[in-house]
Amino acid sequence: MTEAFPRLGRRLRLGLLGGGPGSFIGPMHRAAARLDGRFDLIAGVLSSNAEKGRAAAAALGIAAYPSAAAMCAAEPTLDAVAVMTPNHCHIAECRAALGAGLHVVCDKPLTNTLAEARELASLAAERKRVFCLTHAYSAYPMIRQMKAMVAAGTLGELRAVQVEYLQAGMSQRVENGPLTAKLRWKLDTAQSGPSLVLGDIGTHADQLLRFVVGRPITRIATDLGALVPGRTVHDWCSCLLRMEGGLRGTLNVSQALAGAENVITLRVFGERGHLEWSHARSNFLTHAPHGEPVRTLSRGGPGMLPPAARLVRIPAGHPEGLLEAFANLYRDAAEAMAAAILGVAPDPAALEFPTARDGVAGLAFLEAAIASQAAGGAWTDVAS
Amino acid sequence: MTEAFPRLGRRLRLGLLGGGPGSFIGPMHRAAARLDGRFDLIAGVLSSNAEKGRAAAAALGIAAYPSAAAMCAAEPTLDAVAVMTPNHCHIAECRAALGAGLHVVCDKPLTNTLAEARELASLAAERKRVFCLTHAYSAYPMIRQMKAMVAAGTLGELRAVQVEYLQAGMSQRVENGPLTAKLRWKLDTAQSGPSLVLGDIGTHADQLLRFVVGRPITRIATDLGALVPGRTVHDWCSCLLRMEGGLRGTLNVSQALAGAENVITLRVFGERGHLEWSHARSNFLTHAPHGEPVRTLSRGGPGMLPPAARLVRIPAGHPEGLLEAFANLYRDAAEAMAAAILGVAPDPAALEFPTARDGVAGLAFLEAAIASQAAGGAWTDVAS
Amino acid sequence: MTEAFPRLGRRLRLGLLGGGPGSFIGPMHRAAARLDGRFDLIAGVLSSNAEKGRAAAAALGIAAYPSAAAMCAAEPTLDAVAVMTPNHCHIAECRAALGAGLHVVCDKPLTNTLAEARELASLAAERKRVFCLTHAYSAYPMIRQMKAMVAAGTLGELRAVQVEYLQAGMSQRVENGPLTAKLRWKLDTAQSGPSLVLGDIGTHADQLLRFVVGRPITRIATDLGALVPGRTVHDWCSCLLRMEGGLRGTLNVSQALAGAENVITLRVFGERGHLEWSHARSNFLTHAPHGEPVRTLSRGGPGMLPPAARLVRIPAGHPEGLLEAFANLYRDAAEAMAAAILGVAPDPAALEFPTARDGVAGLAFLEAAIASQAAGGAWTDVAS
Amino acid sequence: MTEAFPRLGRRLRLGLLGGGPGSFIGPMHRAAARLDGRFDLIAGVLSSNAEKGRAAAAALGIAAYPSAAAMCAAEPTLDAVAVMTPNHCHIAECRAALGAGLHVVCDKPLTNTLAEARELASLAAERKRVFCLTHAYSAYPMIRQMKAMVAAGTLGELRAVQVEYLQAGMSQRVENGPLTAKLRWKLDTAQSGPSLVLGDIGTHADQLLRFVVGRPITRIATDLGALVPGRTVHDWCSCLLRMEGGLRGTLNVSQALAGAENVITLRVFGERGHLEWSHARSNFLTHAPHGEPVRTLSRGGPGMLPPAARLVRIPAGHPEGLLEAFANLYRDAAEAMAAAILGVAPDPAALEFPTARDGVAGLAFLEAAIASQAAGGAWTDVAS
Repeated sequence: MTEAFPRLGRRLRLGLLGGGPGSFIGPMHRAAARLDGRFDLIAGVLSSNAEKGRAAAAALGIAAYPSAAAMCAAEPTLDAVAVMTPNHCHIAECRAALGAGLHVVCDKPLTNTLAEARELASLAAERKRVFCLTHAYSAYPMIRQMKAMVAAGTLGELRAVQVEYLQAGMSQRVENGPLTAKLRWKLDTAQSGPSLVLGDIGTHADQLLRFVVGRPITRIATDLGALVPGRTVHDWCSCLLRMEGGLRGTLNVSQALAGAENVITLRVFGERGHLEWSHARSNFLTHAPHGEPVRTLSRGGPGMLPPAARLVRIPAGHPEGLLEAFANLYRDAAEAMAAAILGVAPDPAALEFPTARDGVAGLAFLEAAIASQAAGGAWTDVAS
Repeated sequence: MTEAFPRLGRRLRLGLLGGGPGSFIGPMHRAAARLDGRFDLIAGVLSSNAEKGRAAAAALGIAAYPSAAAMCAAEPTLDAVAVMTPNHCHIAECRAALGAGLHVVCDKPLTNTLAEARELASLAAERKRVFCLTHAYSAYPMIRQMKAMVAAGTLGELRAVQVEYLQAGMSQRVENGPLTAKLRWKLDTAQSGPSLVLGDIGTHADQLLRFVVGRPITRIATDLGALVPGRTVHDWCSCLLRMEGGLRGTLNVSQALAGAENVITLRVFGERGHLEWSHARSNFLTHAPHGEPVRTLSRGGPGMLPPAARLVRIPAGHPEGLLEAFANLYRDAAEAMAAAILGVAPDPAALEFPTARDGVAGLAFLEAAIASQAAGGAWTDVAS
Repeated sequence: MTEAFPRLGRRLRLGLLGGGPGSFIGPMHRAAARLDGRFDLIAGVLSSNAEKGRAAAAALGIAAYPSAAAMCAAEPTLDAVAVMTPNHCHIAECRAALGAGLHVVCDKPLTNTLAEARELASLAAERKRVFCLTHAYSAYPMIRQMKAMVAAGTLGELRAVQVEYLQAGMSQRVENGPLTAKLRWKLDTAQSGPSLVLGDIGTHADQLLRFVVGRPITRIATDLGALVPGRTVHDWCSCLLRMEGGLRGTLNVSQALAGAENVITLRVFGERGHLEWSHARSNFLTHAPHGEPVRTLSRGGPGMLPPAARLVRIPAGHPEGLLEAFANLYRDAAEAMAAAILGVAPDPAALEFPTARDGVAGLAFLEAAIASQAAGGAWTDVAS
Repeated sequence: MTEAFPRLGRRLRLGLLGGGPGSFIGPMHRAAARLDGRFDLIAGVLSSNAEKGRAAAAALGIAAYPSAAAMCAAEPTLDAVAVMTPNHCHIAECRAALGAGLHVVCDKPLTNTLAEARELASLAAERKRVFCLTHAYSAYPMIRQMKAMVAAGTLGELRAVQVEYLQAGMSQRVENGPLTAKLRWKLDTAQSGPSLVLGDIGTHADQLLRFVVGRPITRIATDLGALVPGRTVHDWCSCLLRMEGGLRGTLNVSQALAGAENVITLRVFGERGHLEWSHARSNFLTHAPHGEPVRTLSRGGPGMLPPAARLVRIPAGHPEGLLEAFANLYRDAAEAMAAAILGVAPDPAALEFPTARDGVAGLAFLEAAIASQAAGGAWTDVAS
């Protein structure tokens, strides 16, 4: 399959929404967008404070605007925007961008409500715009390998799944201390959404699980709340779950586990063995086949299947990190955008990146978790 | 504190119930009983088949009996029995032994019902007999260290707990194949109890968690059933749980996870960090203090607290295994037995071994899990 | 300290020598050069085949030249060149670039002889040009942390050192098969230098050890040769060594160890403990203090010293890889180049990157290893 | 093959030499001797101080003697002695025991000189007595597996070997402090032998390497000395080596590496991959086959070859430790002793335990290392 992007003959022009001073995710998006030479950064709304926004834009050598609408209006050559503002801003910014005919790369969670998420997914579909949601963990080569092995039937019939995402960022009583701007919006559910932990990392766990297993989560029973005394936002959610076909599993996420250093673990069990991936060893994948010694697959080493192999940038034994995973999303989104611009078919291998539909699934999961908790932990359907 | 055992001036005389040919746990009990020179093996009922029982006893150089009752009657010098028969036999054998005034070491699960468990606990208390339940994982030095660190407040106020016990033994459709004697009783709920996975390993997970945290589990919501299609016994249980004081947690056990090699992981999170122990690295304990680098404590190395240090047999860097953990139970049970025989106080440090009361707690957990499942996964109180 | 680079007000203009089609290191250099927005790629000599070179340049959107000399002559605005051609080409290309007043980033080994290396080091010094030698492993944050901890006296007086670099690339009789272009020059000592394994990876091990310990290697006794029967180039070197002050150690490198996936391990032992870093876990550093539990430092986590902290790009728990290490060299070289252009002092923190002097030390090590081997493994001084 | 031991119809009667109060290795020998029910401990010389020896013997319930000669004379029913006295005592005690017709289990190093080692090997051969030298690491099941895989040609033609044994016990200036009895004899070369580090752990590394590879070490070039300033005994030895057939390798041992917790690592590389075993994960073996994912074999899990499988006591996932390895030596030595007593052939599978001939090889290695060092590190033949 030939790729569409090279036929475009130019880089895509990207506007930035958010990710200004103090942001960790802003530099990540920018470096990822540029890594493969498929995007030029053109303009940005880098701060809600106009002056700070101008200074940040100047430092990046891009044009500054006070709002998404203003940028879209003033920069007619833009191809796409990248959205990395606080959660509650996504809906209006994505509406504006899609309305202006732009493609979108948007950080997660897509929105703060399922209804909003559905609106954006519909809008992207109607306008035939590319919408890439940056669940970057799903773009690690060894996650793609895990998905491909599951799809290839390596494990036989699936039996159970487990996913966890554990952080320490909210393990202390940060509410008492001086609040950073970031903490201020995180602790305000009007901005961060109805469930902090689910918006921040629960949607990652949900997406990673669905992505690798290739099925929706259909029902959940949850224990959702706060571990830290006096806290009014959620920092813990454990779920019992069913995926399509009755597949059993668990999902555990928390931001209040002191000493937990961004722990993400995904296990998929089948009749013929299991696969396990953990974030601390992101370049490896453990395969425990029934009746044989455990194997450790290495990114770029023997046994790579095509969906993983196409994302391997450097030889096995040379570590890659999160930046490359993020860049994989941007590269593939660029392929889809170029195809849309040219009116040709994109390389189908590039179409594994998460989209607005994953955002819808994530908000459906989030709202079902809240509903289950409200019903005393009762098993609750996840909207499809 | 002086120990009572040396003052006894002799070894304890032990009768064996079960653990004959083909058993893995039989040789483990016997080696553990003898390791510290505190027990002599005297007699045994080693098989329900009398001939096999005699042959097995002869091979061990001990007297053979057809039943617990017969052995207790014919061997008046016995101090104690060790019970390692199939689950459903425990109640009658322990009744017989306690009735004969003997101390008991019994494998888990204590019995198949909570009522039976309570009966044995009451009987042991009434008769003032030592009753050691061999949840051997709780006797690994690094589990004792974990418990001691939690008790010492190393983690501050506790926030959440997680325990899992995952096995592969039932991952295949063993029901279809030729059934071993062991499988036959395991698959018969009249013998193995109302929930195979909970009896076999759920009680281990329950005990390990309660032991380390030092609190009872008060409420659970469970997803209990079979992963393998067509299976009529339980091979999966995932639980949301609360411990005393509202402490949140999860417990996951399964025997049907292909490639899972007796995986046991226990994590305790507190405001100041967390502790994690996993069976595959049983000689180590991970301590992740908030705001400091992660530390790996090594059995016998720096930082051992007294309850762990007293069980360290060889220097750090020289691995110990499950045998020593099992033997720790026997050694401490011998101390309690010697004290009872002499009518003196035992070394209080020796009294951490699990007892019939742990068996009661285990069965209460098991029955609550079944009740929760029957109620659609509803939160259910665990009887105290 | 203010950095000079921002005051330059523009990106540095970089010409590329080598790294064309089929190269792994070419894309790595280019991505690293661009990652921090300090270099624009302007022109290149990307293949010894002119047509291929033009096509490769076109694909990168840069100007193509047939030779370093031609490029330097035709592109007067170039600030620097990046050299990633086969080893034997470095000397002429670096001469040309330095002669044209350009700064240089050069891949290792610097040259194929100590005399040539000295010539380049002298030339760079005379011309006051920045010369960055891309021993990228030395730019991993946790290697900088290790160096900083050693320098801070964390280990007390040093006692011994160990470094190894093990690869599998030459483990098979590749000489018999169809030779790639890369293999062809590697197997030709006229191109790859007098000792393949020492040029390819021995110089990395030598530099990494000297860098972290902060002392020169003074004497070595070597076992140098080929593991694969019939091979005429070196694929194995094990050394006993002394560093300044009599510090003992070992260095082992091989490219013929089947199954070894770019294994690099560095250990430094002192009176108060030791530090260990291994490439497979490049985001971590093990610190084993005498009499305390082992600590695992995590990149970006607690305990980072300033020389490491300044290179941390994303929070702990989010993996970085080799690309960021490579980019750290380019970023710091850019600082030094900007300072030279502006005639101001560079940020001293940026001056840890390897230079032509490291290349001299590497070739001195290589020639001493060959001399030791020629003398039957006798202890041999390493030229300073 | 039937075993001889069961036909003996009784336990072997063992006398103990050394291992009294304060010893770590004494309790290990005793527990190992008893674990499989093949030895009864009868008598002992447990201290050079007669009173302490009597008290220690009483605590064990065995007869006390002032000397090996006295014990051998007074206990005519003894079958064997176990020697765990300081190194310099071995020669006389083993002479006495063999002279009295007893079988011997002896701790390493066999003696302090090669001549003495040869004398004992000859004496054992002449008298046709079993002589088991307790290099217990060679009796870990996964070491046996490693040896069996090498012998089966899993790696193809061998290419290189690496062994290391690193400890911290002598990392501090213990010479300055109050000397324990153990330290006193260790620091006295008249008692501990001409090279402390080589006697203590170098002989272990030498034996483990020869055992697994199945070939003698033929030549070495060494760097032998003391890392700790002012120390007069050796605490460091690094060696370049050749095994039979020209196989290259390295051996590194030290007792003065702070923070090193009894680190033993053995790697064997061949044309088709490599095997690696490390002590901290003694229940596992890493197999890196060329061109396939790395495999982790687990003790008792899939892939066990017969020489390893016969030593597996409990299922995979249940850790075994050093005690079982030690006991494996005693069990197999008992088989050989029983066969000798009965005048029948022993089970050949039992004959892998180290013997006095390994002690000879170990002392030959030690003396060659000293000779190499004396010759400025020159390559030196190891006597066969």
